[in-house]
Amino acid sequence: MSLVTDSPSLPEAAADSPLLAQVQLARAAARRTATLPTAIKNAALEAMATALLEHQEAILAANQADLEQAAEQVKAGELSASAYARLKLDAQKLADAVAGVRQVLRLPDPVGQALLIRELDEGLVLERRTYPLGVLGVIFESRPDALVQIAALAVKTGNSVLLKGGSEGLCSCQALMAAIQAGLQQIPEFPQGSLQLLTSRAEVKALLQLEGLVDLIIPRGSSSFVRYIMENTRIPVLGHADGLCHLYVDRAADVDMAVRLTLDSKTQYPAACNAIETLLVHAEIAPRFLPLAVQALREKGVELRGDPRCRQLVPDLIPASEADWRTEYADLILAIKMVDSLDEAIAHIERYGSRHTEAIVTEDAAAAQRFLDEVDAAGVFHNASTRFADGFRYGLGAEVGISTQKLPPRGPVGLEGLVTYRYQLRGRGHLVADYTAPQARPFQHRDRRDRLNTTGLS
Amino acid sequence: MSLVTDSPSLPEAAADSPLLAQVQLARAAARRTATLPTAIKNAALEAMATALLEHQEAILAANQADLEQAAEQVKAGELSASAYARLKLDAQKLADAVAGVRQVLRLPDPVGQALLIRELDEGLVLERRTYPLGVLGVIFESRPDALVQIAALAVKTGNSVLLKGGSEGLCSCQALMAAIQAGLQQIPEFPQGSLQLLTSRAEVKALLQLEGLVDLIIPRGSSSFVRYIMENTRIPVLGHADGLCHLYVDRAADVDMAVRLTLDSKTQYPAACNAIETLLVHAEIAPRFLPLAVQALREKGVELRGDPRCRQLVPDLIPASEADWRTEYADLILAIKMVDSLDEAIAHIERYGSRHTEAIVTEDAAAAQRFLDEVDAAGVFHNASTRFADGFRYGLGAEVGISTQKLPPRGPVGLEGLVTYRYQLRGRGHLVADYTAPQARPFQHRDRRDRLNTTGLS
Repeated sequence: MSLVTDSPSLPEAAADSPLLAQVQLARAAARRTATLPTAIKNAALEAMATALLEHQEAILAANQADLEQAAEQVKAGELSASAYARLKLDAQKLADAVAGVRQVLRLPDPVGQALLIRELDEGLVLERRTYPLGVLGVIFESRPDALVQIAALAVKTGNSVLLKGGSEGLCSCQALMAAIQAGLQQIPEFPQGSLQLLTSRAEVKALLQLEGLVDLIIPRGSSSFVRYIMENTRIPVLGHADGLCHLYVDRAADVDMAVRLTLDSKTQYPAACNAIETLLVHAEIAPRFLPLAVQALREKGVELRGDPRCRQLVPDLIPASEADWRTEYADLILAIKMVDSLDEAIAHIERYGSRHTEAIVTEDAAAAQRFLDEVDAAGVFHNASTRFADGFRYGLGAEVGISTQKLPPRGPVGLEGLVTYRYQLRGRGHLVADYTAPQARPFQHRDRRDRLNTTGLS
Repeated sequence: MSLVTDSPSLPEAAADSPLLAQVQLARAAARRTATLPTAIKNAALEAMATALLEHQEAILAANQADLEQAAEQVKAGELSASAYARLKLDAQKLADAVAGVRQVLRLPDPVGQALLIRELDEGLVLERRTYPLGVLGVIFESRPDALVQIAALAVKTGNSVLLKGGSEGLCSCQALMAAIQAGLQQIPEFPQGSLQLLTSRAEVKALLQLEGLVDLIIPRGSSSFVRYIMENTRIPVLGHADGLCHLYVDRAADVDMAVRLTLDSKTQYPAACNAIETLLVHAEIAPRFLPLAVQALREKGVELRGDPRCRQLVPDLIPASEADWRTEYADLILAIKMVDSLDEAIAHIERYGSRHTEAIVTEDAAAAQRFLDEVDAAGVFHNASTRFADGFRYGLGAEVGISTQKLPPRGPVGLEGLVTYRYQLRGRGHLVADYTAPQARPFQHRDRRDRLNTTGLS
């Protein structure tokens, strides 16, 4: 709930922060970008893309400086090798990021869409129209090219954004932002201050306090990082801390298909949030399925942990404990549990799942329908890999993030996650008293979506 | 964010609470109501309506008992006369509540709607379908007939609901709930436990801790009550603490229309959240508008407070202080401020408004458009009374509440505020590996909304 729009009532720490001036500037810019024509926003995106390519040398040099320092940290054991790999930019990655900007350019403008046009009565017209949210705070770990994607999404949706990347990529982020700003300055209609880089952790801490001035926080990074953000702000957060996904192999599964789906869901990219962590196997199919699955998974290097009943079938499984059912390995490790029924599978998922993506493998249409109806998760899949849970694969265009909250937007969120709406009502001096007893003029409530292109009835 | 579905990780206070068994029962019921056919839900609503009329005598007697005790409290100064009035039920109010149940019965079912059907590739079909949220917690002050409306909305949307009314209406709520349960028992397909009455404040406190088990909290009552709820739970809250609305009389306003809209927006029902608290008047029109408005408002008994410039024009206004710009009087009191421009009016609203409903009176189309574009509120109105901000007047059918948060749903929220959605994906063993480099089969992303009535492509 963002009810406080009033700076004097801010927490003192935030009010004292130099960040406040930056946020105020971002808010002022957002008021202007909110009503920019699509053509101007697209011109800004093209200018960004062009400038990023023109500044390639400076960007890669800055990245090289970050990498040299990071290499020292890896040697000292302060940074992981995978974080080092994610930090690395090269001409190809930059070209991919620029291609991403142009892809966002081609998406439909989510702002200014009429979701409803209704004539309440003669001359009294209600419209529900999409608007930008206002000011976004995006906090991401490593991967400097994420900055480019976020900037593009913000420009397209007419939002201002305050960006904070991981400290190990500071030079890269500064060089990317300098290029983007140089591009945007080519478009005089595009206001300054709508994209800003934050550089310190203290700023992030202050940002999380600015309820009412910052409209949405998007954290991108590890579970513990996202959880920290969620627990330390009252600003709405878009994202997910956990991706604890299950694949349930029903007694009526096609065994070969089940093995293939298990492999894809676990090993195609094990660090992804939509990879599975626990495999649930119906007891009736386990003797046929489990030996094949274990062999295939081990060929891919997956460490397997099983409950006592699975270990009766495959004795050399590592014993799984209660903690395994709660763990997102994000690695080549899989826990396996035997269940006696669809109900038991659904109950296990209700208890341990993170409401991200859950899948059933079965040839039994009724069992599949029950699973899809009764499992509460952003994605419920039948005979398909959990790895399909992704905005690009879903065809949403750009993906802002994946939300595991219960309220919409949930699941992979496209540009529409960065807009809200307002009800606009235009009258000719209409009074509620006239629609109230005793005279009580009736409402007409005529749908006028057919006049989508008007800004009011004439 | 509702990530925790797992009771062992609940706060100990909540886990110890007897409430937990009730919530678990409600969740189990919600799994069944989620997939009930519309006809069953409508039969349950009709059975509720019939039973409420059949139990009229017992309900009114219970209300009489509440009223007798409340009369003592009014005498002792422990209860306000208006709270006493809201508590009172009679045959007419009960008939109105029953009519409301039948109105909800006639609304379209918001559950099971296909928001998207897309064939990602041959045999791989994605659907985004609406589902109930799960378990709602609704906490309301006084007005026992609110229980009937909330129960009807819950049944129609397939949600379970835990209801807690004001303590002064306990007998009335128990009698209403007994009648509703008697009605629902006529429909054997409708699960028990989906509607439950809470009777103590301790239960409300425990309820607010049940993040992950309760999906949405809806508070209905005073600003301080709603604010308390919002500040004491991490469960999403639908509602608004403040309704600090403004009417801005532009220099190009029609003076007579401006007087009529001022009167309607302030006096038609001053206790409503969509009544105005502050009137902003452009300096150029003030000499013509203000004397007329002051006279008309005073005839309606409105106490007027003005800033120094307004008091130069109308010397006997009570001086307005900074505190007045922040106060939701919810009473026949109005603060008036003079501004020199549309920009100053917009800045005042940005600073003091609660993002509920804001209106401009003007004959200048460009000024109106700027106001509608630049004022950030759930409702932005041109030449219409702020009192139109209401789900029934908007034609949304039943109104769950009015939300002033920035993210959707905002403004008056109909049944669709009580549903979420899931992505369902049905395949034939589809693997993400096949859509990944080097082989990289392309996605088709064909819109299949034309096949809305199928549950998958054949």
